[in-house]
Amino acid sequence: MMTKGRIEAFTDGVLAIIITIMVLELKVPHGGAFEDLKPLLPVFGSYVLSFIYLAIYWNNHHHMMQTVKHVTGSILWANMHLLFWLSLVPFVTGWMGENHFTEASVFLYGLVLLFAAFAYFILQSTIIKSHGKDSILAKALGNDLKGKATPILYILAIISAFYSIWISGAIFILVVIIWLIPDSRIEKALKNNQ
Amino acid sequence: MMTKGRIEAFTDGVLAIIITIMVLELKVPHGGAFEDLKPLLPVFGSYVLSFIYLAIYWNNHHHMMQTVKHVTGSILWANMHLLFWLSLVPFVTGWMGENHFTEASVFLYGLVLLFAAFAYFILQSTIIKSHGKDSILAKALGNDLKGKATPILYILAIISAFYSIWISGAIFILVVIIWLIPDSRIEKALKNNQ
Amino acid sequence: MMTKGRIEAFTDGVLAIIITIMVLELKVPHGGAFEDLKPLLPVFGSYVLSFIYLAIYWNNHHHMMQTVKHVTGSILWANMHLLFWLSLVPFVTGWMGENHFTEASVFLYGLVLLFAAFAYFILQSTIIKSHGKDSILAKALGNDLKGKATPILYILAIISAFYSIWISGAIFILVVIIWLIPDSRIEKALKNNQ
Amino acid sequence: MMTKGRIEAFTDGVLAIIITIMVLELKVPHGGAFEDLKPLLPVFGSYVLSFIYLAIYWNNHHHMMQTVKHVTGSILWANMHLLFWLSLVPFVTGWMGENHFTEASVFLYGLVLLFAAFAYFILQSTIIKSHGKDSILAKALGNDLKGKATPILYILAIISAFYSIWISGAIFILVVIIWLIPDSRIEKALKNNQ
Repeated sequence: MMTKGRIEAFTDGVLAIIITIMVLELKVPHGGAFEDLKPLLPVFGSYVLSFIYLAIYWNNHHHMMQTVKHVTGSILWANMHLLFWLSLVPFVTGWMGENHFTEASVFLYGLVLLFAAFAYFILQSTIIKSHGKDSILAKALGNDLKGKATPILYILAIISAFYSIWISGAIFILVVIIWLIPDSRIEKALKNNQ
Repeated sequence: MMTKGRIEAFTDGVLAIIITIMVLELKVPHGGAFEDLKPLLPVFGSYVLSFIYLAIYWNNHHHMMQTVKHVTGSILWANMHLLFWLSLVPFVTGWMGENHFTEASVFLYGLVLLFAAFAYFILQSTIIKSHGKDSILAKALGNDLKGKATPILYILAIISAFYSIWISGAIFILVVIIWLIPDSRIEKALKNNQ
Repeated sequence: MMTKGRIEAFTDGVLAIIITIMVLELKVPHGGAFEDLKPLLPVFGSYVLSFIYLAIYWNNHHHMMQTVKHVTGSILWANMHLLFWLSLVPFVTGWMGENHFTEASVFLYGLVLLFAAFAYFILQSTIIKSHGKDSILAKALGNDLKGKATPILYILAIISAFYSIWISGAIFILVVIIWLIPDSRIEKALKNNQ
Repeated sequence: MMTKGRIEAFTDGVLAIIITIMVLELKVPHGGAFEDLKPLLPVFGSYVLSFIYLAIYWNNHHHMMQTVKHVTGSILWANMHLLFWLSLVPFVTGWMGENHFTEASVFLYGLVLLFAAFAYFILQSTIIKSHGKDSILAKALGNDLKGKATPILYILAIISAFYSIWISGAIFILVVIIWLIPDSRIEKALKNNQ
């Protein structure tokens, strides 16, 4: 009924802006020597991490939307819900970076990622519900181990923040690695379906 | 004559930016503990409200544009006029949030929403005028109770601001609920027309 | 050879961002009463003026691109050149508004508009050059009185800034009115060509 | 398999935002006289330079993508990698401009451009790898003298920063000139292939 072109365009726009305004947290220092950049290093580190997270989201969203044939009102709202949580990423990234990874900031960073992961799961389920259990997406995901493991890892990272932010950090990087490994489930399913 | 692709793309772009730069009002606090976030709670609350409002606008705009067959100069300008009022949402959201919902800020927030509602109504009427009374949009809207009730509710919220900002707040949330209830008028009309 | 889709999309993106980040110059005041908004009134006034200018540019660009059949390297660069001058509009708008329309700021505002008008003229000429004198755009423009009068008006506004900023302001508004009057030259030419 | 529409749209969005938020580094001065603009001149100069660099990137990206027939996961990530380095351009531009071209800031500016050039080269190689040595892009590039000379020039500019920032500046402008000279290799290759 509805075309998916505009939901893709709007999502692309929001993600492009989110990924770019994060750079604004890298505030230009007043001094012009290399040592003036030192205080920015943690902000830069958290920027790199969030950039990769958002790139993974865009990538997965891109793949998932290719299996979508019709867009319903529920899919529109599930997508908006995902964008809401992702829109908070620049704030938590900046807070974590500028305060040198305090417990509270690492906790909040993990919490926003956790809610974004839930929102992605809801969007995925909404698409499957409206396209049927035999749809390309449903088949491609199978038992969706990665999708199920991710929120559990985030919860571990959130709890770890109160003991050691290094464990949290290691878990965040682990999630990145899991998702960076090429995931060809949807590509294969699309091919089989042709 | 003119294609609607570019008016959709431009509107998507502006709405995506408006919705995202609102986050910039959530200024990263200098302290890194949970209590440093407390002063941000009202800003966050007004952000959530405005995010939902803008998401509703995007959603309705998306649906309305699907009924559009040709774009005239008047439609372009009516659309620009709507974008103008929506572009003020980040400012009034920030002012209301940072000043903990003072009378004046709640009044101005309601006023900008009221003008945006008028602008949407003008855009809708312009589309119907150029597409005829038997057009899909005209049929889909019917007597358009929701569209007519909304400005009245905003006017009530604006007046209430001088007595109790809680009443204003309740009305703002009421409007959100009215519009979040799935509105399948246009989807049905599009279906019947196929 | 090259499709015009991407040049349109990129221009839409840049214009959408320029029009929206101008709002960021409307800095949220610290007080929450109506009188705290007073210092913002000149900034708001210059925002409204620039919003309309940019909307006119988008509108004209939209119409002009509809006559374009192939995109050459020269058209790409002429378009980038236009975007460069338009990208300076938020800065001069903010400077003029925050300094309550000093001579220097009104002068610079007019100068940037003048260069943008030249850039638009160059883009238009580049398109006509590559599409021929019998092209839709060439026919639609005719002797292009409006296009030729605009830079002259801007030059008058710039010079007037040193005598009276009220004259400059009146000229800026005059240019807006000239361009807001529906200009159906291109629409007619497109129709005749079908 | 995957359509290239969304990768183009996302890249356009990110580049449009990067190019536009650079203007935010041109902070509106408090005074309203011409001499209040003087401290902004170096910021403006670095803005112009970076605007042209980003315009060249957009232009080349536009041309390169026209030769792309299918988008793989590797191309998506190579593109994201390029966007990452380009997203740092506003920061290094602001730092260099606000600190009046100190050695360190010119060095970092060159370094970010160097990494962006490498990222572009990787993206180009990834596209050629997936499209074959007889692909349009591979033929169009030939021995790709320009592509190979650029990183070498950046390295020279980076080293020169410690001796004289004027040499670095001259090299940066040289690279701009090399790339501004119309490069019709891809256009020709596309034509021959039709």
